[in-house]
Amino acid sequence: MSSPMDLYEQLTAQGLAVRHIKAQKGNKAEVESAVQLLLRMKEDYKLLTGQDYQAGRPPTHTEDDDSGPAEDDEDDQVNPWNVSTSSAKGVDYDKLIVRFGSCKIEQELVDRIARVTGKTPHHFLRRGIFFSHRDMHQILDAYESRKSFYLYTGRGPSSGAMHVGHLIPFLFTKWLQDVFDVPLVVQMTDDEKYLWKDLSLEDCHRYTLENARDIIACGFDPDKTFIFSDLDYMGASPSFYRNVVKVQKHVTFNQVKGIFGFTDSDCIGKISFPAIQAAPSFSNSFPQIFGDRNDVQCLIPCAIDQDPYFRMTRDVAPRIGYLKPALLHSTFFPALQGAQTKMSASDANSSIFLTDTAKQIKNKVNKHAFSGGKDTVEEHRKLGGNPDVDVSFMYLTFFLEDDEQLEKIRQDYRSGALLTGELKKCLIETLQPMIAAHQERRKLVTDETVRQFMTPRKLLFNC
Amino acid sequence: MSSPMDLYEQLTAQGLAVRHIKAQKGNKAEVESAVQLLLRMKEDYKLLTGQDYQAGRPPTHTEDDDSGPAEDDEDDQVNPWNVSTSSAKGVDYDKLIVRFGSCKIEQELVDRIARVTGKTPHHFLRRGIFFSHRDMHQILDAYESRKSFYLYTGRGPSSGAMHVGHLIPFLFTKWLQDVFDVPLVVQMTDDEKYLWKDLSLEDCHRYTLENARDIIACGFDPDKTFIFSDLDYMGASPSFYRNVVKVQKHVTFNQVKGIFGFTDSDCIGKISFPAIQAAPSFSNSFPQIFGDRNDVQCLIPCAIDQDPYFRMTRDVAPRIGYLKPALLHSTFFPALQGAQTKMSASDANSSIFLTDTAKQIKNKVNKHAFSGGKDTVEEHRKLGGNPDVDVSFMYLTFFLEDDEQLEKIRQDYRSGALLTGELKKCLIETLQPMIAAHQERRKLVTDETVRQFMTPRKLLFNC
Repeated sequence: MSSPMDLYEQLTAQGLAVRHIKAQKGNKAEVESAVQLLLRMKEDYKLLTGQDYQAGRPPTHTEDDDSGPAEDDEDDQVNPWNVSTSSAKGVDYDKLIVRFGSCKIEQELVDRIARVTGKTPHHFLRRGIFFSHRDMHQILDAYESRKSFYLYTGRGPSSGAMHVGHLIPFLFTKWLQDVFDVPLVVQMTDDEKYLWKDLSLEDCHRYTLENARDIIACGFDPDKTFIFSDLDYMGASPSFYRNVVKVQKHVTFNQVKGIFGFTDSDCIGKISFPAIQAAPSFSNSFPQIFGDRNDVQCLIPCAIDQDPYFRMTRDVAPRIGYLKPALLHSTFFPALQGAQTKMSASDANSSIFLTDTAKQIKNKVNKHAFSGGKDTVEEHRKLGGNPDVDVSFMYLTFFLEDDEQLEKIRQDYRSGALLTGELKKCLIETLQPMIAAHQERRKLVTDETVRQFMTPRKLLFNC
Repeated sequence: MSSPMDLYEQLTAQGLAVRHIKAQKGNKAEVESAVQLLLRMKEDYKLLTGQDYQAGRPPTHTEDDDSGPAEDDEDDQVNPWNVSTSSAKGVDYDKLIVRFGSCKIEQELVDRIARVTGKTPHHFLRRGIFFSHRDMHQILDAYESRKSFYLYTGRGPSSGAMHVGHLIPFLFTKWLQDVFDVPLVVQMTDDEKYLWKDLSLEDCHRYTLENARDIIACGFDPDKTFIFSDLDYMGASPSFYRNVVKVQKHVTFNQVKGIFGFTDSDCIGKISFPAIQAAPSFSNSFPQIFGDRNDVQCLIPCAIDQDPYFRMTRDVAPRIGYLKPALLHSTFFPALQGAQTKMSASDANSSIFLTDTAKQIKNKVNKHAFSGGKDTVEEHRKLGGNPDVDVSFMYLTFFLEDDEQLEKIRQDYRSGALLTGELKKCLIETLQPMIAAHQERRKLVTDETVRQFMTPRKLLFNC
């Protein structure tokens, strides 16, 4: 992979080459092609470094840049296929905002959302679980002057089983759909899972249908929600494919190498896939919903690891005459074993699954949830526990809706009044009814309901 | 781009690395991943050099390999986007057969086709215009035991106007359809033209519809022929997209770099496009015709410059459980100015267009057709002309069906009995009625006919 410094040096050389050809009065086609290459290299440079190329000014912050894609920084790795950190508190999100060039969700934005919708902001917003955004103020400006938008989120169906962490974007997206009254498209990237994993196309498609049931069970409005499998919808919508090809024409291998860390040994499917995740960001990919309108803005709630796809999308959008999608980014949901890693759907003990029984939930939390408590009751009573690294407490910030109760738990745990066993009991009693209710709702999702949500069709949309 | 020698050296190093890890009793995952990389590199090597990697035996014929993709050799350049040679006789096709690893169409194969079909072989076969093949004997073996096949050919619609050279694969394919009584799919790669040229999606799609009229006017059987636009069919057939993704998973950037000469500055659309040209080689890409059968073999008549796509396809096919397509390769149709270059649809004087009037045909041949005659009548009568470099004579080998008449022209021209003006007159009198008849047939092709040919539907297919 080119480092920013490599690219800077190549750019400098190409700048000299252009000047040389011009000075020699080279033929027009030659000058034109040298200039085109220069401009393309400048775009690559901007995308890789976030800075405009300036002759004589080497890129800043290049210490780590030889070691991998632009997303790597010290110990935190954040990209769509790998999230890891060495800190028990999890990834340093403030640093990530700076690195990705997004904006922090300040209290002022949370207040504005409350004002515009007339609803109490979701606890994911109140507690900084959705912590970063791009262009959310623009969405609200437009919304206030009666220009609506649509929501787009997704899931990579790598197995039939989803865990509670997978629910985060969907729970939040459902809230957004309710309070803004907007349509939603949900992309199931079964083609991506086929390309990245050792799975058959049939398995990936089957997981799509299984996962769709869990997503529907979150309570989305069937009149305003379209869930689609890439494997099906790509072959069912010429408009969608046209947008995929448009994006593919405007992104080079150099760019996806810089953004995603692809190498020459990667298959061409992986290399071109980012365009498929980009396409739903443009409203005319869904003519059944928006006709041929390309001016309906898109808002994407997702975990921050998906941002590289949408940085690329936002870079391409104006060049193909489309609006940039806005984003709301969430933090990662920690594994039971601790916030150092993202959970894995393939390790049953790394999280609570939506299929777990009450007993399994109890056992997993008691056995595997990393504790911030002290080694003995005496010590704990005396020194108190550390809720910042305690996974049970972290899970409660995701799922316990009552702010006062949560704050009391935090204080009592820190003071030592609340023991680890008692904290775990709180979590178990929060999760058990929540999962049981989910399972009940999922049972009610029939094949016919799935078919309904997944049929390309008109949705209710006021705009 | 890696040269064969680079790759050979990398392979040797990787072989040593694998041995080292095994000797150190490295963990299983580590050994496995090093071995996988080694195997992938061996595949790349085979694809790039046509030879199996053998430790201690560097690749042969590597003199020119630093200068570009594997297709480059001395002065002849042959790849899907560039065909050029410095010889007035045109590309050296015998060398190309060796370089591409295909088989020459010997008289014995032509005789066998005559025997199997009970028909006189097309003059393109009799005269070596279709000169090279892959697995044609296998197609005939199967056909003799009543296992049928289907034909696949295509066109890149880069403008609304087609010239006589573009007819070659279609005229031959129509003959194959008639004598073997088999279905045909015709791919219009409008997505490719959008990716490669400075054209809009709308233009490329419009050219598809225009070109389809000319193709239909060649006389294909509407009950056995499906013509499709990639831009439409990709979005109309989940089965087609599934095969595209399967191919995309099994081809690396290294491989397309070696085969097509792509660079890191190419857009990701170009890089992944070869999979889209590969997919029609598999019968289950067309469920409306073949149901879910993947065992109907495909025969692809095309100009030899398209072979790189199908070398790749044949490499992938067995790895995804499909049959390799068989091929019949044609020589290139020379430009009026001489056989050194392929014709260009953008230069009106480089060929005879299907829209040319009788007068335009006459003027173009008289004015632009490169002559193998002598400078003066006296000299020509005395020394004779050279039909091997004479473009009018070359065109007659393509379009004058009567073998005896053609041979007489050749002898008379060589002896000097036939003057250049007289030879040109023969050509003009051959082309004028041929083009006029094409134009008459094209007029009869209605929008409804185009729609009929381009609708995914059942075709007559006995197998």
